[in-house]
Amino acid sequence: MLIMIKPNVDEAQVAAIKSCVEDLGLRAIESRIRRQLAIAAIGDQDVAPNGLIESLPGVEHVLPIHKPYKLASREFHPDNRVVSVRHIPIGGDAIQVIAGPCSVETPEQMIAAAAGAMAAGASLLRGGAFKPRTSPYSFQGMEENGLKYLVDAARPYGMPVVTELMDPRDIDLFLKYGVDVIQIGTRNMQNFRLLKEVGQLQVPVILKRGLSATIKEWLMAAEYIAAQGNLNIILAERGVRSFEPAYRNMLDVSAIPYLKRETHLPVIADPSHAGGAAWMVPALSLAAIAAGADGLMIECHPNPAQAWSDGEQALTPQELHALTRQVAAVAQASGRAYGQPLIDLPRAS
Amino acid sequence: MLIMIKPNVDEAQVAAIKSCVEDLGLRAIESRIRRQLAIAAIGDQDVAPNGLIESLPGVEHVLPIHKPYKLASREFHPDNRVVSVRHIPIGGDAIQVIAGPCSVETPEQMIAAAAGAMAAGASLLRGGAFKPRTSPYSFQGMEENGLKYLVDAARPYGMPVVTELMDPRDIDLFLKYGVDVIQIGTRNMQNFRLLKEVGQLQVPVILKRGLSATIKEWLMAAEYIAAQGNLNIILAERGVRSFEPAYRNMLDVSAIPYLKRETHLPVIADPSHAGGAAWMVPALSLAAIAAGADGLMIECHPNPAQAWSDGEQALTPQELHALTRQVAAVAQASGRAYGQPLIDLPRAS
Amino acid sequence: MLIMIKPNVDEAQVAAIKSCVEDLGLRAIESRIRRQLAIAAIGDQDVAPNGLIESLPGVEHVLPIHKPYKLASREFHPDNRVVSVRHIPIGGDAIQVIAGPCSVETPEQMIAAAAGAMAAGASLLRGGAFKPRTSPYSFQGMEENGLKYLVDAARPYGMPVVTELMDPRDIDLFLKYGVDVIQIGTRNMQNFRLLKEVGQLQVPVILKRGLSATIKEWLMAAEYIAAQGNLNIILAERGVRSFEPAYRNMLDVSAIPYLKRETHLPVIADPSHAGGAAWMVPALSLAAIAAGADGLMIECHPNPAQAWSDGEQALTPQELHALTRQVAAVAQASGRAYGQPLIDLPRAS
Amino acid sequence: MLIMIKPNVDEAQVAAIKSCVEDLGLRAIESRIRRQLAIAAIGDQDVAPNGLIESLPGVEHVLPIHKPYKLASREFHPDNRVVSVRHIPIGGDAIQVIAGPCSVETPEQMIAAAAGAMAAGASLLRGGAFKPRTSPYSFQGMEENGLKYLVDAARPYGMPVVTELMDPRDIDLFLKYGVDVIQIGTRNMQNFRLLKEVGQLQVPVILKRGLSATIKEWLMAAEYIAAQGNLNIILAERGVRSFEPAYRNMLDVSAIPYLKRETHLPVIADPSHAGGAAWMVPALSLAAIAAGADGLMIECHPNPAQAWSDGEQALTPQELHALTRQVAAVAQASGRAYGQPLIDLPRAS
Repeated sequence: MLIMIKPNVDEAQVAAIKSCVEDLGLRAIESRIRRQLAIAAIGDQDVAPNGLIESLPGVEHVLPIHKPYKLASREFHPDNRVVSVRHIPIGGDAIQVIAGPCSVETPEQMIAAAAGAMAAGASLLRGGAFKPRTSPYSFQGMEENGLKYLVDAARPYGMPVVTELMDPRDIDLFLKYGVDVIQIGTRNMQNFRLLKEVGQLQVPVILKRGLSATIKEWLMAAEYIAAQGNLNIILAERGVRSFEPAYRNMLDVSAIPYLKRETHLPVIADPSHAGGAAWMVPALSLAAIAAGADGLMIECHPNPAQAWSDGEQALTPQELHALTRQVAAVAQASGRAYGQPLIDLPRAS
Repeated sequence: MLIMIKPNVDEAQVAAIKSCVEDLGLRAIESRIRRQLAIAAIGDQDVAPNGLIESLPGVEHVLPIHKPYKLASREFHPDNRVVSVRHIPIGGDAIQVIAGPCSVETPEQMIAAAAGAMAAGASLLRGGAFKPRTSPYSFQGMEENGLKYLVDAARPYGMPVVTELMDPRDIDLFLKYGVDVIQIGTRNMQNFRLLKEVGQLQVPVILKRGLSATIKEWLMAAEYIAAQGNLNIILAERGVRSFEPAYRNMLDVSAIPYLKRETHLPVIADPSHAGGAAWMVPALSLAAIAAGADGLMIECHPNPAQAWSDGEQALTPQELHALTRQVAAVAQASGRAYGQPLIDLPRAS
Repeated sequence: MLIMIKPNVDEAQVAAIKSCVEDLGLRAIESRIRRQLAIAAIGDQDVAPNGLIESLPGVEHVLPIHKPYKLASREFHPDNRVVSVRHIPIGGDAIQVIAGPCSVETPEQMIAAAAGAMAAGASLLRGGAFKPRTSPYSFQGMEENGLKYLVDAARPYGMPVVTELMDPRDIDLFLKYGVDVIQIGTRNMQNFRLLKEVGQLQVPVILKRGLSATIKEWLMAAEYIAAQGNLNIILAERGVRSFEPAYRNMLDVSAIPYLKRETHLPVIADPSHAGGAAWMVPALSLAAIAAGADGLMIECHPNPAQAWSDGEQALTPQELHALTRQVAAVAQASGRAYGQPLIDLPRAS
Repeated sequence: MLIMIKPNVDEAQVAAIKSCVEDLGLRAIESRIRRQLAIAAIGDQDVAPNGLIESLPGVEHVLPIHKPYKLASREFHPDNRVVSVRHIPIGGDAIQVIAGPCSVETPEQMIAAAAGAMAAGASLLRGGAFKPRTSPYSFQGMEENGLKYLVDAARPYGMPVVTELMDPRDIDLFLKYGVDVIQIGTRNMQNFRLLKEVGQLQVPVILKRGLSATIKEWLMAAEYIAAQGNLNIILAERGVRSFEPAYRNMLDVSAIPYLKRETHLPVIADPSHAGGAAWMVPALSLAAIAAGADGLMIECHPNPAQAWSDGEQALTPQELHALTRQVAAVAQASGRAYGQPLIDLPRAS
């Protein structure tokens, strides 16, 4: 339930209300509903004796949260949430692009990747250090060195970094290297232990949709993170499994407006994993932005033909550069801005 | 195979080549590949003795068509095909919107629907006279009267009309009333007898994707029409069946760029049947246009709350009017135009 | 609604009740609920003035039919319906096997097919004369000659024949050749015009499930046939479309018990189209029978390697003979019988 | 590749061959192909110089393993693998049933569950102590106490226990309580870190299929376990996600024969999670056995109406008792045995 607090209630009264909520075995989490202070009391339903909360001093009235995802719902937080990744706001009026290679390979590759992503108009750098691969015999990622190469490449440009966490035991390593956004991958969307642990951090989390997760299951997975106190969650639609053999996954563009209605959390799209082919990335990117996505996560490699993984779906920096111009134009056509200043590429000599 | 004809070959030689093709039991269909005349020889594979065709006077060389959909493939016709519906070109540089109610109900409803669609910027009027309904106890359409109301409402505005054909025995009726575009619905995408019969007309056909048809099956269904001689085919993506209960179907936006690469036929999207909810139509429409669709088919009813069928997914003319402005802006952002002049709505007094 | 008639009501009273029902614009269809006569009044809901029907002489009480499929529901007919195909009962205590080739090819092929199917323990002969093929360039069936070869081959063995109808205009031809069971194929499950026309016959109909039809849609398709008066309907589960590339379709074995609970109609399975591979047919056949299916429709060709279509999924008569023994054993293990006497194959000399 | 060893080669030569394989950066794992010793060299492909292995003393010849799942493939191990869980063989000629509640709740509940499962003919006891729940606000399992109650209840009957592991950090706890079979749940099928860690044990593992995992992905997940050295893997088909709303998941019965052909690992089915309803469990169980499954995992609760989770899909012990008789009959009809002696239930006094 949402406990709406009267205006001008003092801190002691708010504390007393929260204390009463916690005595009932519920979590008390503050929010603002149209500028009015509210306390969400979250947990097992219906444990409050009838009228108890309403009778507390400072309580104006009590509203139910109908959705099973309490903290992730628009009821809890009617305004769009803006997740700040350092100086980069995700979920506000401007579109942000996260770009970088599937896998971190070498320091040189990452330096080139960062330079290329920056020049192409991306605001965050991605790269996988711990790789979930279908085969145990495939390259499993550079692991700790990968984190190092990623961060070292991004820092000169002031770009925050995004990388995937597969095991809670790696969190200390992620914190040591200053990972800015923790990505929870498709295969771990319902790895509830992992969700709970990233929920105990305040580091922003990109939560990718499971391969055939429903919207409700996805928001419940976000709720696992939120219920631990971390509301810095970004949802990433990356295509779902389908009967269609022509493309790797089916980008569920309908999920974007649906999520924007159901939740206050930012929503981005990953057109690279959706289509599984570089040539499809532009069309899917523009579709996602036109549908209302807050950003894009795009695989971009300085030399896709030499990529250690997923090269067939990576753009070159030049291709990304061309795409971000189109993204900016579509964003503007729908009344939004593009997050980074777009500069012209230097001409090849 | 594609038989490329030498420049300046006379008609008699072309006729001789076609005659030779037909003697082999194949169909001979003319096309232009980058302005060069070509004759597609379509049918069972490999029936021509080796070198026979190549040796005919006027034949430059012979190319295989690799795709199983021969006439629908880009190999057969590398340029975009523009299907002309009277004066309206579909598949060219401008986006066209087809709007109107799910079902034709009354003359008054259709007059209001046509006026609303026209004012909102649609260029074609749709309305179902023969309705494929899940239940035999539901309203099955106004049938012949429906065709009459539809055409009578559209004519004053010069709008071509689109309506669904379910049975080849109704073709004469469709021709009598001058239906401009025959729609083949989702449930009939592989009703091969119906496809063959509309293939024998020259009336443009909108071929909707089956509920879980692959792209290949869909193009093979188009091939059934094309193989009879009717190449005026428009493909309509209308959402596929999925595991997601949050929306009626899942708009497969990836199909749009994929089709544009595989086929020369125009591709439109039906956001109304995809989402199954009026509030989702704008986001899905913009996504489809951004992904490269040539047009949209949108349900629009003068009074959705009173609609005899599918009212929950119909826009009002005012909502459609607002949407077409956004569609035009996104089209422009991707270097295309909007098909109709957009006029301001008169203010409500 | 179901109008339960009092015991010992005379025919004139029953006729009066039916007449009253029809005056309300509803259809009146007789059934027996636990031996008690009932009249189902089917059509638009709630058209009867409150209490009107209850007040008629001879009416005991009135029950609602809750399911949208009225005549197909167990509420309408609590006992299993046995559809008699000549002397062969389908839906009773004994399992029936329908076997034969995908396509009727030649008189000789069909004579061998009939002899093989008979010797292997099948009770009905199948064979396609009108073939729905994905490609317009594939063999489309022997058409009228196919019907002739099929019937001519089956008659000496007294086997009823099953063949697919694709177009209502072919019904007269089917009746002329004495087709015993009309099959409505997967692609035509929602070809409502076709359903209505076979509903006007009394010929048994096998209604195959659409490629991704829900159970409800399937039963509503059956309702289209039933609402016209033909209750001789057999439902055939033949696998649904899925994400799994390892087999052509996914046999939905759960549909079998679910249907047996929801409907009184017999349910058979088609393991050949489900798996798309001959080696999978035995396991899928046994699974379907163990799950409660009333029969099987199995592709069997005298020489699968030479089949004109779908040879990779056809059993030889010897393989079918081995399978029917296993089917009989599993049927017996679940308290049922096998429909035909099983005879030993003559040894090859 | 598979290195086939000549007969009567001594241990030193075998060790030398393995050493050579490991020097190439590959794993060397022994197997028997039709009683002949073989060494599988597993890892990156084609790292062995041409002819090097063939030239080693004691090597008869070298065979490729074509499948991407090397150790899980039938090529590696042509015979059925029998996984021994204490004295219970899984994958041999006899069907085994694993039964017990969804969640371990109390000592009393588990004592009743064990007694009921035993009397009903189950050979292993299941129960969840760590529960993956869609909502963070739902009961998450009794955790360590749950393991204790489970093991304490099973020991008097000598029943091995099966329970789900969600986090590698709980492995010590599982070993401390002597868990006999570790279950990897659907949501963790591609939690590769977890797979690697259970691969380093010799404890048998039940690997459930992911919600929409392909057979290939599933076998690759098994390969993650096998590549670490643990070949005691049992695959559990538990239904896949589908478009059909009538049941929770769709039991993919086709997976059973397909797996039996592709892999030597035992295959069981979980009809409880597949259908999501107790009334469907018998039909699905019999279908799975008829299709060739080696066993069943069935939810059974002493009092389903009071279950803390998933009560709607749990059988009573009496229902399970009735079902195991049918399972035994179907097993026998297909030439197999039932794993436990079936005793009559004492009559209620």
